[in-house]
Amino acid sequence: MNSALSQNSRSAVLLISCPDVKGLVAVISDFVFRHNGNILHADEHRDAETNLFLMRVEFDPTDMDVSLDALAEEFAPIAARFEMQWRLAKGQRKPRVGIMVSQYDHCLADLLYRHKAGELDCDIPVVISNHADAGRLAAFYGAKFVHTPVTRETKLAVEQQHIALLREHECDVVVLARYMQILSPAILEAFPHQIINIHHSFLPAFIGARPYHQAFERGVKLIGATSHYVTEVLDDGPIIEQAVSRISHRDSVDDLVQKGRDLEKVVLSRAVGWHLENRVLLYGKKTVVFD
Amino acid sequence: MNSALSQNSRSAVLLISCPDVKGLVAVISDFVFRHNGNILHADEHRDAETNLFLMRVEFDPTDMDVSLDALAEEFAPIAARFEMQWRLAKGQRKPRVGIMVSQYDHCLADLLYRHKAGELDCDIPVVISNHADAGRLAAFYGAKFVHTPVTRETKLAVEQQHIALLREHECDVVVLARYMQILSPAILEAFPHQIINIHHSFLPAFIGARPYHQAFERGVKLIGATSHYVTEVLDDGPIIEQAVSRISHRDSVDDLVQKGRDLEKVVLSRAVGWHLENRVLLYGKKTVVFD
Amino acid sequence: MNSALSQNSRSAVLLISCPDVKGLVAVISDFVFRHNGNILHADEHRDAETNLFLMRVEFDPTDMDVSLDALAEEFAPIAARFEMQWRLAKGQRKPRVGIMVSQYDHCLADLLYRHKAGELDCDIPVVISNHADAGRLAAFYGAKFVHTPVTRETKLAVEQQHIALLREHECDVVVLARYMQILSPAILEAFPHQIINIHHSFLPAFIGARPYHQAFERGVKLIGATSHYVTEVLDDGPIIEQAVSRISHRDSVDDLVQKGRDLEKVVLSRAVGWHLENRVLLYGKKTVVFD
Amino acid sequence: MNSALSQNSRSAVLLISCPDVKGLVAVISDFVFRHNGNILHADEHRDAETNLFLMRVEFDPTDMDVSLDALAEEFAPIAARFEMQWRLAKGQRKPRVGIMVSQYDHCLADLLYRHKAGELDCDIPVVISNHADAGRLAAFYGAKFVHTPVTRETKLAVEQQHIALLREHECDVVVLARYMQILSPAILEAFPHQIINIHHSFLPAFIGARPYHQAFERGVKLIGATSHYVTEVLDDGPIIEQAVSRISHRDSVDDLVQKGRDLEKVVLSRAVGWHLENRVLLYGKKTVVFD
Repeated sequence: MNSALSQNSRSAVLLISCPDVKGLVAVISDFVFRHNGNILHADEHRDAETNLFLMRVEFDPTDMDVSLDALAEEFAPIAARFEMQWRLAKGQRKPRVGIMVSQYDHCLADLLYRHKAGELDCDIPVVISNHADAGRLAAFYGAKFVHTPVTRETKLAVEQQHIALLREHECDVVVLARYMQILSPAILEAFPHQIINIHHSFLPAFIGARPYHQAFERGVKLIGATSHYVTEVLDDGPIIEQAVSRISHRDSVDDLVQKGRDLEKVVLSRAVGWHLENRVLLYGKKTVVFD
Repeated sequence: MNSALSQNSRSAVLLISCPDVKGLVAVISDFVFRHNGNILHADEHRDAETNLFLMRVEFDPTDMDVSLDALAEEFAPIAARFEMQWRLAKGQRKPRVGIMVSQYDHCLADLLYRHKAGELDCDIPVVISNHADAGRLAAFYGAKFVHTPVTRETKLAVEQQHIALLREHECDVVVLARYMQILSPAILEAFPHQIINIHHSFLPAFIGARPYHQAFERGVKLIGATSHYVTEVLDDGPIIEQAVSRISHRDSVDDLVQKGRDLEKVVLSRAVGWHLENRVLLYGKKTVVFD
Repeated sequence: MNSALSQNSRSAVLLISCPDVKGLVAVISDFVFRHNGNILHADEHRDAETNLFLMRVEFDPTDMDVSLDALAEEFAPIAARFEMQWRLAKGQRKPRVGIMVSQYDHCLADLLYRHKAGELDCDIPVVISNHADAGRLAAFYGAKFVHTPVTRETKLAVEQQHIALLREHECDVVVLARYMQILSPAILEAFPHQIINIHHSFLPAFIGARPYHQAFERGVKLIGATSHYVTEVLDDGPIIEQAVSRISHRDSVDDLVQKGRDLEKVVLSRAVGWHLENRVLLYGKKTVVFD
Repeated sequence: MNSALSQNSRSAVLLISCPDVKGLVAVISDFVFRHNGNILHADEHRDAETNLFLMRVEFDPTDMDVSLDALAEEFAPIAARFEMQWRLAKGQRKPRVGIMVSQYDHCLADLLYRHKAGELDCDIPVVISNHADAGRLAAFYGAKFVHTPVTRETKLAVEQQHIALLREHECDVVVLARYMQILSPAILEAFPHQIINIHHSFLPAFIGARPYHQAFERGVKLIGATSHYVTEVLDDGPIIEQAVSRISHRDSVDDLVQKGRDLEKVVLSRAVGWHLENRVLLYGKKTVVFD
């Protein structure tokens, strides 16, 4: 899987899903080739159950005979013919990520460090928190920090403020880096399929609150973390990435929390990275991650 | 963790759990030492939540001044004083394992091969199945095979037959190597805490039937397997071992089933091995596995 | 990764490597499409260092307008134009695998069981061993067993016998399932790039004899296994698959050997399966494994 | 394994290695008990090859009838009798860690964050670097930063300065967090068995410079990281911890470097944490890590 570091910064990505018929790979690759685009990587998947075809084509448009906007226009009739859902990520502007966080700042620290190190190909214009603690960290990494305390009474109003903030900073993606409030429908509608959460369990085990405590009680021998798109049902959205770590009877709940932090950091940062590189395609309740 | 291969075949194991008080390690190790037992490995655990002390002492009784039976008698008053639940595994007779299996024979084949290879320090006198298929495999490895078809009507009667068979072959332990019938209370009572199952999911996710199908539907990125003691609540008993394996969108349900087989084999054989070496201590709904 | 189970038994696979130029994906997929082949899965890779393009196209030829032989003929001029090294696996005949083994039979038992269970899409006509032990196992699974003892004096002559046996049984692939003799050039030349070995270490660590002893001496915290194509330099051929397992100070050399067996079985069977499904492409000292 | 978080801050640790004789567990646990120390965790290991006994006893000295200094004095004759090498870590003062780093600061950032988060039970008084880059990061986390450029000519003089700095800040432990200079004997003698390095390969594979490039060239399917005590032979010291991560043909050298960073962070921080908790015992070229 090519990292942000090695990805050609000029590359564009065409993402397609449609009913599977013969010849789709040929039609799509030929289209790019005819316009003198240089395919850097093509990957596709067929879902036998749903008869769905999904494809990701990453190409270098440098020598193309048309602009990317014109290319999209020319692709439209092909897309219509094959009933495609499709998207052309033009790669001309870095995606902009707003991060939301509560009191635990390990995922935030990890994302900000990776961003600085060049691992995440995006801008991070704003960090929003219902706690004041993360302000110093955000400042160190040069991100604007907005502290928006939430109470039961102010929750809906504050969320409107969040939407406004994220729009003001032109965020494309929202990352919940251990943001411990349940989102209401308004923000989900404002950023459809663009809100990524980290849940500190191996979903669907231990949905809801205090998953490490639940895991401790059940006596599992592995703990996990899951990054997924947020939907209206709690901890039920399409899973992007998961990982687990071995524990033993020697581990207290505090040990699980500490070991879990390493999982959460790695799992969330992978999911965000793949999303930013347009590697994740949603279908139904599931994702394809093209590597 | 010492394997069956490297374990001293003469070693005895003392397993203890009791309320935690100061001095328990000294009292117990001194007791073994006073009788000239040679401690090969001692391990202990304190559970802070329940204030429980658990200990496993493996020792070579060769030079002891008393027999193991006499040693047990002498230990009784110490055990009483500290309110211990305890057990002395004398290591003089190999534990006897009865295996139950349905149509999928990969775990059976794996256990029989490991037994032949010396990885499992036990005898396997009998293999019981509600299908006829595994008979040839059992015969190849020299285990008696009994085919006991089950219908809804005959289930309870057949289970009485199972209990009789397992007793007749003096089985200490029952291993459900993908035995797809739910056990009724009678057999659980006949072999308390001695029935080990393999469930083909990462419990507590995907309890019940067709867990690989459930995993496929949910779109998880890892599949798992769990070995646990059987209790009256389905897939709810104390977990002995778990493992997971990475999958992707390329994997069909059949692929999950195939990849899962490797997990099931490894997880079940580890759990059985540890149980046979008296490494597993039950407390509440959980286990301590002394390595 | 689709298993043998889910792979269409009628599918053909086109494997290509050539200098990377623009349009290769389009040219190749268009070629298959024009002849009414149905691409089931296409994957490609560019190696930036060597400017090499590698591609694997799996397609269903059922509705094609030409035979696979004719298709190959038609592809020849395209291949010539782009300086391709290529191969068309027609999928009309199961590949035939000869297994060679010495005294340790765990990999043999594993491969034979997987074959019986349908995990390996091949025939296994012959098992060759310099020890007599594995004969009963081979017989159980219906493979012909040939015992060919080797001494320093007879080594070259015996190897000629091996080549004759493998040819007589029309073997395409040779699997060294813990065969502890170093092969001489004659057999390598007879089966170029078709001999797969399992080495019981994480190569390039612990090349040569007794790798578990070497690992124990060095005090590593993980042990590994490596499956690779055999070349004239010992343990130096292109790696197909590797895996590791955690060990600790509690593990004796015997424990490493036992834990290593599980690694060896899984790693070798994966490598063989991928090879049989035409997923492995060699380039230089390395492999691409298309999943 | 209990984390720093859950470890009793008042606990003391007795570390012992000696020739193995009968009764050692009893003698040692009885000694602690007689002085009213409360054993929190005892673990021991026998090395069969060298006939060595190693033990770690963690105990709460709160109610003891003597001071820890007096306890040590009383233990001396027992130690002499059994020819013990031993050490009593009194737990009364946090260990002090000096970190050395070159241009890559990911391990430094990780250690400083973990320290702030309470995962590492130590003080970090000084960060030394031959590059100026890490100064801002050290300052953010409140560690003194000293920039000491090194040239071939000044190397020995600068190393004397390092020793002086580390002594001035009363450092017990030196962590090489990707410090890319080979240490000379003087500093090894000044901090015997107290210098911990992270090497970015799965040792003993890929010793020396540019291990990710070596791994890429060899075509391995897993990359690794190794934390070890530094000795006079390059990358040859006793290994404390190792981990690996899966890679594929899609990964360029830059991708290996990026994926490797996550390994390096986790492996080094674990090794440092275990060392600080007095869980690591050296014997010969190997370590016992008591969990």
